[in-house]
Amino acid sequence: MGAVQARMETALQRFLPAPEIVPGRLHRAMRYAVLGGGKRVRPLLAFAAGELAAADPGRIEVVAAAIEMIHAYSLVHDDLPCMDDDVLRRGRPTCHVEFDEATALLVGDALQPLAFQILTEHVIADSPGAQLEMLRILALASGSRGMAGGQAIDLASVGKTLSLPELELMHIHKTGALIRAAVVLGARCGSGLAAKQFDRLEHYAKTVGLAFQVVDDVLDCDSSTATLGKTAGKDAAQAKPTYVSILGLARARALAEELRAEAHAALSSFGAEAQRLRELADFIVLRKF
Amino acid sequence: MGAVQARMETALQRFLPAPEIVPGRLHRAMRYAVLGGGKRVRPLLAFAAGELAAADPGRIEVVAAAIEMIHAYSLVHDDLPCMDDDVLRRGRPTCHVEFDEATALLVGDALQPLAFQILTEHVIADSPGAQLEMLRILALASGSRGMAGGQAIDLASVGKTLSLPELELMHIHKTGALIRAAVVLGARCGSGLAAKQFDRLEHYAKTVGLAFQVVDDVLDCDSSTATLGKTAGKDAAQAKPTYVSILGLARARALAEELRAEAHAALSSFGAEAQRLRELADFIVLRKF
Repeated sequence: MGAVQARMETALQRFLPAPEIVPGRLHRAMRYAVLGGGKRVRPLLAFAAGELAAADPGRIEVVAAAIEMIHAYSLVHDDLPCMDDDVLRRGRPTCHVEFDEATALLVGDALQPLAFQILTEHVIADSPGAQLEMLRILALASGSRGMAGGQAIDLASVGKTLSLPELELMHIHKTGALIRAAVVLGARCGSGLAAKQFDRLEHYAKTVGLAFQVVDDVLDCDSSTATLGKTAGKDAAQAKPTYVSILGLARARALAEELRAEAHAALSSFGAEAQRLRELADFIVLRKF
Repeated sequence: MGAVQARMETALQRFLPAPEIVPGRLHRAMRYAVLGGGKRVRPLLAFAAGELAAADPGRIEVVAAAIEMIHAYSLVHDDLPCMDDDVLRRGRPTCHVEFDEATALLVGDALQPLAFQILTEHVIADSPGAQLEMLRILALASGSRGMAGGQAIDLASVGKTLSLPELELMHIHKTGALIRAAVVLGARCGSGLAAKQFDRLEHYAKTVGLAFQVVDDVLDCDSSTATLGKTAGKDAAQAKPTYVSILGLARARALAEELRAEAHAALSSFGAEAQRLRELADFIVLRKF
């Protein structure tokens, strides 16, 4: 994990415009938002899925960087006063606090095309046609029927009582879509998977995506701001429906465990080549931050 | 012009998610931001440049819709309180006034990937490799070294005295990059242009892009809010450097005329197939709104 995280830091440094390029303040803010923090869960998943498909790590690195840029932009926009209005992220001031609101808005606006740009500038698939399809997968995962749509469902749910299926629908969009894209695109960097294997991998991705969110909800309720590096207890304060508010803490923890088992089961037909994916399911559920 | 505008309205209606698809409020807001207004200058330029390159109109339509989505998202984000804080656009309440700030933020965030998505879902070039290059051109034009970068330079210039070259640098990014992309991508839908012809077309695009901005500055100072459909006199009120504030009204008007002549000169080696591009240079400079 440490090796992938270090590799990603170097790669992202290289893909982001240098701070001395005009407009310097925007480029410094983009680097602030992307570099120097984060668990890099999506890149870790992309590398693990890529390994399963015997993909070239150079390709995976590009795909993982693009996904991490989309993820980082979403955090910057999420933290804005008109959204979650948060001041702390990854143990540091949020982007609009460190810079200003307008710059934070533009950081997100500029990270998004940069993600698509790097996917056009490097070979990440066996053919340009396959590469176009990968761009399409990332666009769908990011847009109104993916991550941005999940944010909109989230907005609409504040102060409401959701059923468990409604909550699941929100998270399948909000965090699940990009996590699924990380797994799928990582695997698509290779060419070794049959359609049936892809189905299993997608089921794994959906399951760990949900598990990630369940654990996030548990941690938000259960941990300190210092441990998380972001404001704890925020969901309850904002009257957001969560797995904890619907199920209670004990049942939410049990659900995370069930999802971990389901993720492992989805990989049961694979051998040692899926070991990293199994370890990541464990990491996602057992993490403390 | 009317035919292209009507065609674009239909195409954009088709490419945008239907209002009944979840999340409905976001999709309604996306449609509000994109449909039912605007001069469609960028699509007009894409169609005119495509005609010069004997391109299939079906291809141009996709490219023009993608560019118009990027343009529409930039207006929605520009109008937000943390940016220009404007309440009127195309004679209607701005998106965050009609809906709310968080939704307007997500409208922009979701229009951007939709633009890239449609460029992956339709054949717009003779090969997938050429199509990837077109996606790259749009990503560059939208990002920190294009439109979003121009916004950042604009932010940094408020209250400052800029030189004419500094003002030009801002506008080459802020509005010029996407106008240039419209011309270049329209032409790339075809396959009939030699490299030298492309150079001339790019010079035309740069020139009309600047002319567009000079005329915008003149109109902001010179017209009523009712005529423009957006708040007039905003630049002076916000102490923004403009062609009028640097050159005065008379010299700004003369500059627009010079740029119109330069745009025509750039097309001098073309025949009747460039007639629409010539007419658009005239329209851009002689428009009253």
